[in-house]
Amino acid sequence: MPEDALLSINQVTTREQWSLRQAIEGYARHGVHGIAVWRDKLHELGVPEAVGMLRGHGMTVTGLCVGGLLTAEDGAAFQDALDENRRVIDEAAALDAQCIVFVAGGVEGGSRDLKGARERCLEGLAALLPDAAAAGVTIALEPLHPMLCANRSVLSTLKLANEWCDRLDAGPELGIAVDVYHVWWDPDLEEQIARAGSRIVAFHINDWLADTRDLRLDRGMMGDGVIDLPAIRRMVEDAGYRGHREVEIFSERNWWRRDPDEVVNIIKERNRSAV
Amino acid sequence: MPEDALLSINQVTTREQWSLRQAIEGYARHGVHGIAVWRDKLHELGVPEAVGMLRGHGMTVTGLCVGGLLTAEDGAAFQDALDENRRVIDEAAALDAQCIVFVAGGVEGGSRDLKGARERCLEGLAALLPDAAAAGVTIALEPLHPMLCANRSVLSTLKLANEWCDRLDAGPELGIAVDVYHVWWDPDLEEQIARAGSRIVAFHINDWLADTRDLRLDRGMMGDGVIDLPAIRRMVEDAGYRGHREVEIFSERNWWRRDPDEVVNIIKERNRSAV
Repeated sequence: MPEDALLSINQVTTREQWSLRQAIEGYARHGVHGIAVWRDKLHELGVPEAVGMLRGHGMTVTGLCVGGLLTAEDGAAFQDALDENRRVIDEAAALDAQCIVFVAGGVEGGSRDLKGARERCLEGLAALLPDAAAAGVTIALEPLHPMLCANRSVLSTLKLANEWCDRLDAGPELGIAVDVYHVWWDPDLEEQIARAGSRIVAFHINDWLADTRDLRLDRGMMGDGVIDLPAIRRMVEDAGYRGHREVEIFSERNWWRRDPDEVVNIIKERNRSAV
Repeated sequence: MPEDALLSINQVTTREQWSLRQAIEGYARHGVHGIAVWRDKLHELGVPEAVGMLRGHGMTVTGLCVGGLLTAEDGAAFQDALDENRRVIDEAAALDAQCIVFVAGGVEGGSRDLKGARERCLEGLAALLPDAAAAGVTIALEPLHPMLCANRSVLSTLKLANEWCDRLDAGPELGIAVDVYHVWWDPDLEEQIARAGSRIVAFHINDWLADTRDLRLDRGMMGDGVIDLPAIRRMVEDAGYRGHREVEIFSERNWWRRDPDEVVNIIKERNRSAV
């Protein structure tokens, strides 16, 4: 099953049903040996226990979620965020994660200084890269959909992620995560994926539902929406990407309410038929 | 009151409270002599009656909403859409509207061919431009927020609007509408507004609420959100724009439930203090 060999599931997809322990056991039971881990779930289980379980079940950690959130205007809050990111780097090293999923952070409470928020994020990133390099960890810049610019990420396009990479001029400690949900609409997608090339260290799949009702928690399963997944897969593979396809679905109205074993089975089926 | 002289209100802002007749009378009563008109409300009143009332109250029509929706895959549906747009052109000419607000249309039911939808829209536009020119009407391409790409508009960025204008190489029958809600997040905003230059024929203002709950109907009043309105106003004015600022607020939870006279008063106040 070569298609399943590079399949990973972001545990947020079964976040309401399964703890990290259950997700590791559950995904492995279904022959899925890639997982992206969220820190709240990781801390519940404990890092040493998680490392043992992941190893015991032959799991590859395709991402640790999330690092970043580096847009605070307040100096002390900004330093706290840097310290938190250094803990994320240590955890990613312990899990041997393929990357840290880096979410920029939004425009901070009451501010309208979008340009300033972007500059602060870039500065924070520059400060963290030596730590990531020393730990052998890759920080993957994930552009998030522009509808999340106010609250979650001022890194709104793949073009901006490429520009940040150009400016930071780093080694393998810096990469890019492409999530179809965030970038499918972009008229420059093909060009910017080609430009990203070997920077691409993670590829997240899911779908945009035609009747989307929520800005964060209403993603669809591959095949249920309007994204041309095979086309985007081709773009990232043409750019040289040969890694996992990581399924990441936030879904308050559907997938978080379903039997998680059924969810995993449907993911496996759609990974073959719709991607 | 020079600030009010270039103020316009898109009637959707009081859509739940006022008919077109009431909106014309209401805005004029408050000294606001710009209005953008929606076709459903226009047809309720009738075009000749509307023309008379607009003239009688000294109103400038800053936009007729909406033209476009030209992404149908089905040939007959596409032709129907072209015919409908020709009626919009006639109405815009009758109202002496400064522009038709052109909304591209989404990815049509079940399709995932985003590139094809964009090409069809561009073709349809090319077919309509001679009619617009003959009628002395300007079609204003309005890029809509990427979160509306599936259902409403595949024209997702100002850069793409500029590219379409380059390709169509038209005269004054083609322009661009800049709505802060749709473009504020764009890292290329300043560059693309400058590039648009004299193509800009409409400027729509409102705000992005930090706690936005709906993809279409939850816009904020100027000053209540995270958009740096003075900065974007400066960009469009630096690009040469000297026209109206049109307030366009879809707001199911707030402004559509308020006393419309109060809404207009707050608009006037915010137009001075927050833009």
